Amino acid sequence: MQNFTFYAPTYFVFGQGKENQTGRYVKRFGGTKVLIHYGGGSCVRSGLLDRIKESLDYEEIPYVLLGGVQPNPRSGLVYKGIEICRKENIDMILAVGGGSTIDSSKAIAAGVLYDGDFWDFYEGKARIKKALPVGTVLTIAAAGSEGSPDSVITKEEGMFKRGATGEALRPRFSILNPELTQTLPPHQTAAGITDIIAHLYERYLTTTEEVEVTDRMIEGLMMAMIHEGPRVIEDPNNYDARANIMWAGMMAHNNSCGVGRRQDWNSHNIEHELSAQYDCAHGAGLAVTMPAVFKYVMHNDVTRFAQVANRVWGCKMDFYHPERTALAGIEALKSFLKSIGMPTTFAELGAKEEDIEKMADVCVNGDGRPGYLSGFVKLDKQDVMNIYRMMI
Amino acid sequence: MQNFTFYAPTYFVFGQGKENQTGRYVKRFGGTKVLIHYGGGSCVRSGLLDRIKESLDYEEIPYVLLGGVQPNPRSGLVYKGIEICRKENIDMILAVGGGSTIDSSKAIAAGVLYDGDFWDFYEGKARIKKALPVGTVLTIAAAGSEGSPDSVITKEEGMFKRGATGEALRPRFSILNPELTQTLPPHQTAAGITDIIAHLYERYLTTTEEVEVTDRMIEGLMMAMIHEGPRVIEDPNNYDARANIMWAGMMAHNNSCGVGRRQDWNSHNIEHELSAQYDCAHGAGLAVTMPAVFKYVMHNDVTRFAQVANRVWGCKMDFYHPERTALAGIEALKSFLKSIGMPTTFAELGAKEEDIEKMADVCVNGDGRPGYLSGFVKLDKQDVMNIYRMMI
Repeated sequence: MQNFTFYAPTYFVFGQGKENQTGRYVKRFGGTKVLIHYGGGSCVRSGLLDRIKESLDYEEIPYVLLGGVQPNPRSGLVYKGIEICRKENIDMILAVGGGSTIDSSKAIAAGVLYDGDFWDFYEGKARIKKALPVGTVLTIAAAGSEGSPDSVITKEEGMFKRGATGEALRPRFSILNPELTQTLPPHQTAAGITDIIAHLYERYLTTTEEVEVTDRMIEGLMMAMIHEGPRVIEDPNNYDARANIMWAGMMAHNNSCGVGRRQDWNSHNIEHELSAQYDCAHGAGLAVTMPAVFKYVMHNDVTRFAQVANRVWGCKMDFYHPERTALAGIEALKSFLKSIGMPTTFAELGAKEEDIEKMADVCVNGDGRPGYLSGFVKLDKQDVMNIYRMMI
Repeated sequence: MQNFTFYAPTYFVFGQGKENQTGRYVKRFGGTKVLIHYGGGSCVRSGLLDRIKESLDYEEIPYVLLGGVQPNPRSGLVYKGIEICRKENIDMILAVGGGSTIDSSKAIAAGVLYDGDFWDFYEGKARIKKALPVGTVLTIAAAGSEGSPDSVITKEEGMFKRGATGEALRPRFSILNPELTQTLPPHQTAAGITDIIAHLYERYLTTTEEVEVTDRMIEGLMMAMIHEGPRVIEDPNNYDARANIMWAGMMAHNNSCGVGRRQDWNSHNIEHELSAQYDCAHGAGLAVTMPAVFKYVMHNDVTRFAQVANRVWGCKMDFYHPERTALAGIEALKSFLKSIGMPTTFAELGAKEEDIEKMADVCVNGDGRPGYLSGFVKLDKQDVMNIYRMMI
């Protein structure tokens, strides 16, 4: 196990109706004027935004609204948010939505207190040292951004999708009401489940030895997702399944099960070009990407893939041919993702074979990239092209 | 799953040699004059205390020393610590040791800022609202107190052993260097492993339905302990096994795998009378107590005991006789604890049959107790006597 530091000081409020206490938590964590940042119309139509506004009114906390966050959130809206916050002397960002809205909120929060271009953080030119406090009301279990120090933004010029990390970005509080996820369309629910599973695999695929405790935690969270995923697809109103998935989504990404081990993130990096290019759901892109990446890299450590196949997917261990077990595990993952309605091919994402070289180039060389992906296995442009081709 | 709040803002610094940075973290978390609280002579003899003093000297942070914490820490030393802190204007407690030292430090931290008798917190007469900040340098993986809001103290008058909880007690920072545990005697290492497993079982035994995600996390941590425990008993210098156990010990008790579910804690309550009465190691007491308690209560939910037997201990599921599987799991736990050198009988703890009635009485009726234990099953005095008898 490697050395590490771990600090996850987010206050979680979990359960039915808890979003009605938003104002109380804004106050407790020092917000005196708030930017409410949100996405499309669903939180307006459902009345969620009104309930949150009411709870802020009750605490006499003024707010400014900024909606319009898209999936794969864009830098344009971040610049706008930064401008509003400075002009209005906002001192807390309240994200009402899923990972996209929370990530956009984090970018605004860091950008407000930075003299340069906030994009510097996303292309590695500057480190995030401070940010306005962020609070969240989560409406989709997926990205884990409600408990993580991470944010992913897409820059319109060139459609570069990049991530930034900073401890200052961890939300001060996050309100998790599983009921709020019950109205999600099945495709979004399934994409969220896929993203959670991807966050677990990205941590599981490690070159660090002797990491049994985090291996076992990750495997446990995977098994919980495999149990709860189909239940919630079958019955979107299954509160308990929603609740289990929601906590798993947070635990999968707050990094308590990823500490002390080198992690992968190649599936995420390779997928990012797909969702940036074709604007598909990140989770849908991951469903297509993961099996291809795993098949391409499994020979680097067959034992690891056999272990997850056996322990998590219940594949019989073939002791003389562990690669068969490893492969069976990847097929089991693929079947599972298909069973919850996720795509499995390039075409289903609207992706085109002729874009492969360009995407691979942006993926490994674009916008300050070093010319390769590191992680479980080092991948160059040709590798990434090969992987995209496997998805066709 | 039940509603809950979860807030675990401890800063963890994990790895070799990290205790030499203690001064830096004291400073970062605002300590300007520190009480260094510790136990016996081992941290003096090993040079650990000197290294910590040096790192405080380097940061020019003055300190006062208070050693002498015993296993099953006593109220007498807490009163002394409170007096010193007030007289010397101490603003941070630095615990150097295991659960006993950390728990004693937490009691002092809460007591300093309280006008009444600190024991009020431990007999439920007052709630902990504030405390001096506590930092820890952990020297034994066991109690999980380095990441928990809990503290257990024994009052000399009557030898009442009682716990208190308060979010203000969560350490501000905890330094976890697995190397520091390599010099522990095997008995203490094994007692620590047992305590960690007990913290997992106490959360696992629940009457709350639909808790798959936390079930799976708990099971994963248990399996990691079963894997690493024997390795560290075989080779005390196995750093990686020590490291896995140390992180498991924290995760087992910071409650991220216990949220949203009713918990048990009857094994702890019944054990506390043993360690209070005979001054045995808490973990050793738990090794004798757990199998007895589990056999006594398993018929309340055979499925739960069969599940842990099958998933964690690898017992074949007997579908027509699940109670056989359940029992096999309890026997597997008992064999495991014996294999790492833990006692399995009352006599090995130095416990006496003639004390049973008195202990059961104190356990359920003593010092403000309601006359029964609640948790997975409600237990009255007769039940507790029956359980003690099963240990003979």
